[in-house]
Amino acid sequence: MSAVVPLPDIQHQRAVFPDGLTLDSGQRIAPVAVAYRTYGRLNAARSNAVLVCHALTGDQYVAEPHPLTGKPGWWEAVVGPGRAIDTERFFVICANVLGGCMGSTGPREEMTDAEGRPLGRPWGVDFPPITIRDMVRAQHLLVRHLGIERLLAVVGGSMGGMQALEWAATYPAMVAACAPIATATHHSAQNIAFHEVGRAAIHADPDYQGGRYWQTGRVPAQGLSVARMVAHITYLSEQALTRKFGRRLRGAPALTFLEDVFEVESYLRHQGSTFVRRFDANSYLTITRAMDYFDLAAEFGGDLVAAFRGTATRFLVCSFSSDWLFPTSESRNLVRALNGAGANVSFVEIATDKGHDAFLLDEPEFHAALGGFLRGVAARAGA
Amino acid sequence: MSAVVPLPDIQHQRAVFPDGLTLDSGQRIAPVAVAYRTYGRLNAARSNAVLVCHALTGDQYVAEPHPLTGKPGWWEAVVGPGRAIDTERFFVICANVLGGCMGSTGPREEMTDAEGRPLGRPWGVDFPPITIRDMVRAQHLLVRHLGIERLLAVVGGSMGGMQALEWAATYPAMVAACAPIATATHHSAQNIAFHEVGRAAIHADPDYQGGRYWQTGRVPAQGLSVARMVAHITYLSEQALTRKFGRRLRGAPALTFLEDVFEVESYLRHQGSTFVRRFDANSYLTITRAMDYFDLAAEFGGDLVAAFRGTATRFLVCSFSSDWLFPTSESRNLVRALNGAGANVSFVEIATDKGHDAFLLDEPEFHAALGGFLRGVAARAGA
Repeated sequence: MSAVVPLPDIQHQRAVFPDGLTLDSGQRIAPVAVAYRTYGRLNAARSNAVLVCHALTGDQYVAEPHPLTGKPGWWEAVVGPGRAIDTERFFVICANVLGGCMGSTGPREEMTDAEGRPLGRPWGVDFPPITIRDMVRAQHLLVRHLGIERLLAVVGGSMGGMQALEWAATYPAMVAACAPIATATHHSAQNIAFHEVGRAAIHADPDYQGGRYWQTGRVPAQGLSVARMVAHITYLSEQALTRKFGRRLRGAPALTFLEDVFEVESYLRHQGSTFVRRFDANSYLTITRAMDYFDLAAEFGGDLVAAFRGTATRFLVCSFSSDWLFPTSESRNLVRALNGAGANVSFVEIATDKGHDAFLLDEPEFHAALGGFLRGVAARAGA
Repeated sequence: MSAVVPLPDIQHQRAVFPDGLTLDSGQRIAPVAVAYRTYGRLNAARSNAVLVCHALTGDQYVAEPHPLTGKPGWWEAVVGPGRAIDTERFFVICANVLGGCMGSTGPREEMTDAEGRPLGRPWGVDFPPITIRDMVRAQHLLVRHLGIERLLAVVGGSMGGMQALEWAATYPAMVAACAPIATATHHSAQNIAFHEVGRAAIHADPDYQGGRYWQTGRVPAQGLSVARMVAHITYLSEQALTRKFGRRLRGAPALTFLEDVFEVESYLRHQGSTFVRRFDANSYLTITRAMDYFDLAAEFGGDLVAAFRGTATRFLVCSFSSDWLFPTSESRNLVRALNGAGANVSFVEIATDKGHDAFLLDEPEFHAALGGFLRGVAARAGA
């Protein structure tokens, strides 16, 4: 399987599963490839594995420079030697999600037919709709492939937190600890609405070409850029935007009535344009849909408590006070359900004005809470 | 001046000012046309005039069916016989803003040269950048043209509230009372950012054609629709979106993995597509910029108190508890400045979960506060 839309020639580390997966939609994809990276060493007892799940636009390059952008790994503040997720102590696994565009099976990879035969073109819009649970099923294949029977912890923020929750609900015996961060058990109407704006912007771009942009090599850069811009606003608090930019004019002491007068505008445009260099529009559509579908209670007959009843998994739930995309109230709902299920759960709301993005940034209190939680779990497990 | 982009043939009521206006940008536009509607009767003393200022996508059809859509006037809940702005008692004026697209001079109207000669094509992107103060200057021409020396009140919500504040600051002797509603004295970084997404979506639409879409008759409907969608989300609270739609699936009891599965999506798409039938993209760009430029303190050397010092105008400031676009904290900042200026000011925060949109909706407590304020002002003025 290779990228057909021209991209730098990157050989992602990956595992291929010929038998594939049956998805929530009922469709079967085979083979399924899962691109991943690992950091640290698996101990002899295979008891020190921590799975990190990435967010919407993240990937497996969690603690090393990104091969396309050259930027530091997206969670180097949290994953590394001596960090909260200590790679000197833990064997850290991070996989590109199913439906992603960094080497795992997804819209940018070569399509296969029902017998698994390659069809010489990318999946594109023919990639089936997937769910957060489908992503977790693909990770489950990888974890078993790596010879791991039980994960010490599954950790993730935002969409990564959805996956962490799905892991704990779907494979409870395999998850000693679970840390869902800045997340929720379902996507809210407002979250769905913001995603829908992004999708509409992509669909509106004539270079989207009905999703068959791989036929011409012209990608819907403008639409994807607008989608990224609107999403980016939701990741920041009003305070963070104001602190970063306020109403500062760009290179002008007063109104000049030129384009791009406000710094926040050029910043957003930059965010949009750099994003399109590394991300695939059909992946963006696929993954945002998966997030919108996510409703953990619905998977258990509308009863969130049933998702966790009798679980032996230990939970650390983290929220950030200025996160308006996944507000603390959503984490409290989760904690209530976990309490109702009799789970062992700690909850911490981190006071910060950085918004949803805080989970990716320098937040010592959050890092201390997560690090302490994992050390405690490891000590109990003798890992 | 006539619309060159094909539109239903509407004859807007308007006043034309041959001498025009000098704008904040330094550019002069002449002539300037101001399209307007009035309701009720001006009394003999000319002391009962209430100017209503409209919001970003509003227009002068405040209390009667809209000539393009046939829908009720945008503020019939507030303006009409026996309403808070009682047309049996007050002479109500509402003008399409400068830069608008319902008959006032703006990007859709015919361009004139420096000598005021018509050039046979619309202003389009050559329409100069304008400010909220420029809009108010145009309204000032109209008010004087109608023979009114002093307005009993200037009332407006959102961008209309910006204009009301600008009136009180620029023409204090002409404004007996001022009711800025769901507004702020400047646009925040987050507000600017959301506007920038909308503008980027319009610019990204190839039918925008560098703003010269009148040359082909193809308008940037997709881009304008996306802009409207993102703006619409900011007008609603999370609670309002959830109450309206929750996560309800459209015509399906469970996930079907079809397009448009969530009701909120089809609602937003509908909002976007109906909007483009009545609004002009270049107007949208012009007016959102004017809102972003708005910073009343900056017009007075950075001192908001100076904007109102010694004013005899009476103020009613209204905010809505779930409005996150123009939150109550912004209204409190305004009230503090008015108090600092020694102004007579009442402040009310209306408890509602309807978000920014609440100022347009059935909010009896708000209507009672505004109605009482205006009756009190009228009684004092003997109007």
